[in-house]
Amino acid sequence: MESNYVWMNTKRIETLVDGIFAIAMTLLVLNFEIPQFTGVITNAVIWNALVELWPKMFTYGLSFILLAIFWRVNHQQFYLIKKSDTPLLWINIFWLMFVALVPFSTSLIGEYGEFEISELFFQINFLLIGILFNLNWRYAASRGLLDKSVNQKKIERIKRINLALPIAAVIAIILVFIIPEYSSLAYLSTYFLKKFFKASI
Amino acid sequence: MESNYVWMNTKRIETLVDGIFAIAMTLLVLNFEIPQFTGVITNAVIWNALVELWPKMFTYGLSFILLAIFWRVNHQQFYLIKKSDTPLLWINIFWLMFVALVPFSTSLIGEYGEFEISELFFQINFLLIGILFNLNWRYAASRGLLDKSVNQKKIERIKRINLALPIAAVIAIILVFIIPEYSSLAYLSTYFLKKFFKASI
Amino acid sequence: MESNYVWMNTKRIETLVDGIFAIAMTLLVLNFEIPQFTGVITNAVIWNALVELWPKMFTYGLSFILLAIFWRVNHQQFYLIKKSDTPLLWINIFWLMFVALVPFSTSLIGEYGEFEISELFFQINFLLIGILFNLNWRYAASRGLLDKSVNQKKIERIKRINLALPIAAVIAIILVFIIPEYSSLAYLSTYFLKKFFKASI
Amino acid sequence: MESNYVWMNTKRIETLVDGIFAIAMTLLVLNFEIPQFTGVITNAVIWNALVELWPKMFTYGLSFILLAIFWRVNHQQFYLIKKSDTPLLWINIFWLMFVALVPFSTSLIGEYGEFEISELFFQINFLLIGILFNLNWRYAASRGLLDKSVNQKKIERIKRINLALPIAAVIAIILVFIIPEYSSLAYLSTYFLKKFFKASI
Repeated sequence: MESNYVWMNTKRIETLVDGIFAIAMTLLVLNFEIPQFTGVITNAVIWNALVELWPKMFTYGLSFILLAIFWRVNHQQFYLIKKSDTPLLWINIFWLMFVALVPFSTSLIGEYGEFEISELFFQINFLLIGILFNLNWRYAASRGLLDKSVNQKKIERIKRINLALPIAAVIAIILVFIIPEYSSLAYLSTYFLKKFFKASI
Repeated sequence: MESNYVWMNTKRIETLVDGIFAIAMTLLVLNFEIPQFTGVITNAVIWNALVELWPKMFTYGLSFILLAIFWRVNHQQFYLIKKSDTPLLWINIFWLMFVALVPFSTSLIGEYGEFEISELFFQINFLLIGILFNLNWRYAASRGLLDKSVNQKKIERIKRINLALPIAAVIAIILVFIIPEYSSLAYLSTYFLKKFFKASI
Repeated sequence: MESNYVWMNTKRIETLVDGIFAIAMTLLVLNFEIPQFTGVITNAVIWNALVELWPKMFTYGLSFILLAIFWRVNHQQFYLIKKSDTPLLWINIFWLMFVALVPFSTSLIGEYGEFEISELFFQINFLLIGILFNLNWRYAASRGLLDKSVNQKKIERIKRINLALPIAAVIAIILVFIIPEYSSLAYLSTYFLKKFFKASI
Repeated sequence: MESNYVWMNTKRIETLVDGIFAIAMTLLVLNFEIPQFTGVITNAVIWNALVELWPKMFTYGLSFILLAIFWRVNHQQFYLIKKSDTPLLWINIFWLMFVALVPFSTSLIGEYGEFEISELFFQINFLLIGILFNLNWRYAASRGLLDKSVNQKKIERIKRINLALPIAAVIAIILVFIIPEYSSLAYLSTYFLKKFFKASI
């Protein structure tokens, strides 16, 4: 059966990607548990419980936005990738495996974000996501799976811009050992990294 | 890569919107936990447990319907929005972030609906959803992302009608301090608000 | 905005329907909890726990199949319904509200299926689903939202065949008071009811 | 109504398949629970908890990849299946019922993988999935639901290649009694089985 599918179109991959991202992004909310109280419940008690949820809400927002960025980058790549083959499919499946893991790493830092080991787990998760989507583009380019309108210069340009996200993840991993709870601020650097890589060509 | 996507079409956003709404609406049901009993179980015991679930069922229905309304309004807007750019994408991602939060706010009022603070959290969640979808339309109109058939008069008309939902949310927030458990009745006012805004043009 | 959408096409409804069914059908599995043991764990202990899960597995299969039937019937209806309006949208949203409730009613009978009240809850849930999808067809027919190829005879024929599912639900409700745990066998009658209604024209 | 749908197209089935796979694959992550600790929490404590999660992570990866393989094979089959009828729909619904069960079997072996009974449950689940997707192809071929370009030789070839997955499941079931925790290694044999079946024609 393989042989008939060496060059399949990419629609089937995109459907799975859209589904898994939508679910992973919505599952993040399961992170928040409704507080349970023993003793008298008042507005102040609930307010305190909500305030204590704040770090979890921050990580919710962070992961939601990071996932949205990766979802968008995938769509941008597949706008230019016109054909697919078996290895490309597998790169995307492994990529999705780490995407679907994000709700777990997110609850880990929501619960134990002050410990380096949790932040490390979270940042490595996103580093792997970042590496695999780079691999996606590089593989597609090397096998001629791209739209014919994409010239070599554009391929190189996108290669460099795509590095912004894994580089930010590496910075985040370094920051874990300095300011663990704020290591994710590293992702703000992608804005400047992208500018830099665009200018460098 | 950016430059190629300044004017992207809106299909990719709509797919994510449909996915996240379907999941958020279905996750609402996780709100109901199967009652666990200690002691002898009878039909009467289960009946009482189901009756006690009633406030949760009411909030389930309420959130389901509110989400359906916003889902529909988004489809209506994107029926007229023909192009997308980066800020529009981000408005929608932030909007979805608060949409995906609804199952949590819903369980909060399902569990602690008699406390103003819970109702406030819920109503502010929907106020933010309401503000962001207004922003979506205003931004798209100001940047010329709409279908060419949409004239200025129609833009203004829709701007006003769209206000009905955030105004209802504000009324709900006021009602929280008067009749907390029934504050959501404010959304019934959208029917009249829409009529009023339509007539006012 | 309304006025532009009096006659909208039905694609948007179908997307939401597909999403909510896929999720509700998959969430049914959350019904099974991994057994937790105190004491020595052996193969026999796990085997017993799995055997005890059997009623839950039966209800899992039952709800999965019932949902599949309703999903299919909806697709069949929308194959012939070509236009949509606001009331039709709302019929479908209320219908989906009871569809998304199915994972809860399923766990209720999975846990307390030997009590009439649980079975009643489950069967009434499916009765409401059955009534609303009949309403969907009748409303669409009465408002001329159907494909032009559908003549009056065919409309009447489908009206009758559609009755099979709610009638089976009513039979199930009666059976609850006779053989509660097996009341769902009533759905087997749809096979004969459909034959009967088809022959009666 | 039936009669109009004897030959329906396959799009509706594919949508449900894509939805249920995306959700089942993402739900696998609910398998990991955030560790809860009593006593002093340190990096070492969290690290140990994550190391203890390792068998669960292995089964997560395994099930994710197995589901991805079956999702892909389904797409390959429906690339060639052009028409659908009621029995084909039901083969797929039963197939999806066992697909949606995978998150449960996965947590079972994640929790009790050292017991043969858990592994047996898991492997039988995948055997049933493997048998049903073979049935899907055989039924479609026997009823002339395939694309006209597919000749008898190709049908037979695919029939044999499709056997690789259920045969691997049978090998896994045998391995359960020899090396329970590693029985899933049997799926590596599909690579050679496929080669063999391709060569045998």
